[in-house]
Amino acid sequence: MSPPAVGVLRETAAGERRVALVPEVIARVTALGLDVLVEKGAGQAAWFPDNAFTTAGAAVVSRRDLLENAGIVLAVGLPDAETLASLHGGQVLIGLLGPLLRPDVMAQLARQRVTAVSLDGLPRTLSRAQPMDALTSQSNIAGYKAVVVAADAYPRYFPLLITAAGTARPAEVLVLGAGVAGLSAIGTAHRLGAVVRAYDVRPTARGEIESLGAAYLELPGPEQGAGQGGYARALTDEEEARLRDALTDVVPRHDIVITTAQVPGRRPPLLVSERAVAAMRPGSVVVDLGAGPMGGNVAVCVPDERIVTANGVTVVGAGNLPAAMPTAASTAYARNVAALLAHLVTDGEVVIDLTDEIQAGVVITHGGEVVQPATAALLAPRAQEAEEVSA
Amino acid sequence: MSPPAVGVLRETAAGERRVALVPEVIARVTALGLDVLVEKGAGQAAWFPDNAFTTAGAAVVSRRDLLENAGIVLAVGLPDAETLASLHGGQVLIGLLGPLLRPDVMAQLARQRVTAVSLDGLPRTLSRAQPMDALTSQSNIAGYKAVVVAADAYPRYFPLLITAAGTARPAEVLVLGAGVAGLSAIGTAHRLGAVVRAYDVRPTARGEIESLGAAYLELPGPEQGAGQGGYARALTDEEEARLRDALTDVVPRHDIVITTAQVPGRRPPLLVSERAVAAMRPGSVVVDLGAGPMGGNVAVCVPDERIVTANGVTVVGAGNLPAAMPTAASTAYARNVAALLAHLVTDGEVVIDLTDEIQAGVVITHGGEVVQPATAALLAPRAQEAEEVSA
Repeated sequence: MSPPAVGVLRETAAGERRVALVPEVIARVTALGLDVLVEKGAGQAAWFPDNAFTTAGAAVVSRRDLLENAGIVLAVGLPDAETLASLHGGQVLIGLLGPLLRPDVMAQLARQRVTAVSLDGLPRTLSRAQPMDALTSQSNIAGYKAVVVAADAYPRYFPLLITAAGTARPAEVLVLGAGVAGLSAIGTAHRLGAVVRAYDVRPTARGEIESLGAAYLELPGPEQGAGQGGYARALTDEEEARLRDALTDVVPRHDIVITTAQVPGRRPPLLVSERAVAAMRPGSVVVDLGAGPMGGNVAVCVPDERIVTANGVTVVGAGNLPAAMPTAASTAYARNVAALLAHLVTDGEVVIDLTDEIQAGVVITHGGEVVQPATAALLAPRAQEAEEVSA
Repeated sequence: MSPPAVGVLRETAAGERRVALVPEVIARVTALGLDVLVEKGAGQAAWFPDNAFTTAGAAVVSRRDLLENAGIVLAVGLPDAETLASLHGGQVLIGLLGPLLRPDVMAQLARQRVTAVSLDGLPRTLSRAQPMDALTSQSNIAGYKAVVVAADAYPRYFPLLITAAGTARPAEVLVLGAGVAGLSAIGTAHRLGAVVRAYDVRPTARGEIESLGAAYLELPGPEQGAGQGGYARALTDEEEARLRDALTDVVPRHDIVITTAQVPGRRPPLLVSERAVAAMRPGSVVVDLGAGPMGGNVAVCVPDERIVTANGVTVVGAGNLPAAMPTAASTAYARNVAALLAHLVTDGEVVIDLTDEIQAGVVITHGGEVVQPATAALLAPRAQEAEEVSA
């Protein structure tokens, strides 16, 4: 009998260029007693050709063979409906599945008796979970890339330049939200020579912002903006409106605005109003990392598009920037996945133990049930509704 | 009688987004006793709307009115043939006209009795000419922007990143040519955290390269590569081939290669062979600032295009990067033009004096003659041929 196998899917979502495992990480997976099967072309968009995988010890196979033979299926995002439907009972699916956004899909996977493991459920404050923290590794890339995208769209210099013919003033960059992505953006913009200001509703962020060379912006935010697990909590509508009003004066004094405010599984706060963007100078750039199907941080933003407003402001809806830096993003993600596999796998098999703090966070479905409390809670009222209807 | 006027043309070349004068510089021109006429829409692509010019004291006019009423016509690049044909005797045309590339056009302007003044003729080693040095201001932008473009095309991080999940190595950047553009690229790549190596055929460049944090690359270049006016001299075919051979081993060890080797009015040296690019790793990026109608520094490069080779290398033909950062580029250029106007204009009139060292360089045609020696020298053999034919 051949050893149990891990399969690496080719991502099919629009614009997704990442791959869940990269050649340099394959040895760490085979060391766990697992064969590695890679779908043909899976790494191509991330600049990992098929032969790099075979050289590293993987077998390149069709999607059908992969789904038939892999006990563990690795993905970056939630696979398409057809692929999900092909999964069979007992298979383990690992990815950034966004269970809070798609509880219905999780319920379906539970019915198929698939074990769904989602890296975005990881308890991020747990230090032994850090090597598995894909949200951190991907947010770090998003923050860096947001600055690179902004610098490329911006028609002036980032750094101060003093020449015989005169001085070019440095770009003034505003970063909203100082989580992993925000801090990465602050550091990168500062490196490139911009003057950086930043804001976060969590008072603890002030020290981190200042340590990266940015100024902390005083704004009339909520008294206490910290939530659970190191995240900002969701603001009330009134708090959000007060913050947005304050920013209407602040935003137009900046050349570049990068917004990174997200609350897990909820609509991102709307921080930059249409009026604020309309008051910006021509040539200014706004990059909205919160842009996605649930909304975004910037009123005029269109997800996955780059628009130019009537007053000449470029607004980039950048909900998936890690996909635009796919080699680094895939490598970091693959390392996170390998660390998680090392935690889950014993003697070549995934051993589920929901009393383990990490597993309690990441294991969404198992044994025919939606077992993760946060996802189950979203499904509970619906189950109730269904009962009411049938009653 | 209205005072003499300066007219600012709207650029019409493909991809050209700059404008020769910007609102903040208009006061410096009117202080010379000149009115400023701006062609409608001239600043739009550089994010300077027409109303910004009128607010600054200029009049926005049609191209026809401009050509009829402006004694001095300002452009960035050489205007199109129709515009040139509309110029009348006594008019002064100022721009980066590239006289060595188009001596025939200069001869035509001389026949029209237009005074053509080209900023690329400036004696760059003269310290009092530095405020007028448009080649420097634009090359500085090209070098900075080359790094921004490369960082955006590159699928990994520039800086070293150490995380709980592992380390991302810094990008290794190679800069060929350490003139203004090369030094600007070196400084920017170093700022962003890359490991930078650079080479220049002028031995004096070593100190400048090292002072910006890059390593100087030892290559079997010519014994003495410095030419006139601070430029590198043109290499012999043999020297160029030896350098290209040496680079075939060096180039593939880098993730990013930025080439900046140019020799005024001549074919740029071919430094990076097809074999060198074919040996680079997938995801690598090459930016060729030398790419243009006369060739480029990189064998597979296509001017003004971004191609991806069969082995996954992005090659950017970036002959006019200042146009891609048009607000900064126009502002710097406008300051250079204003400094030149201050030098040329007395009592609202351009006063030509070819005994002046600056004017001897920049004044290409005057009084019906091609007066700049370098341009005239290119026309001389043709004149001789014409005589031979008619004889």
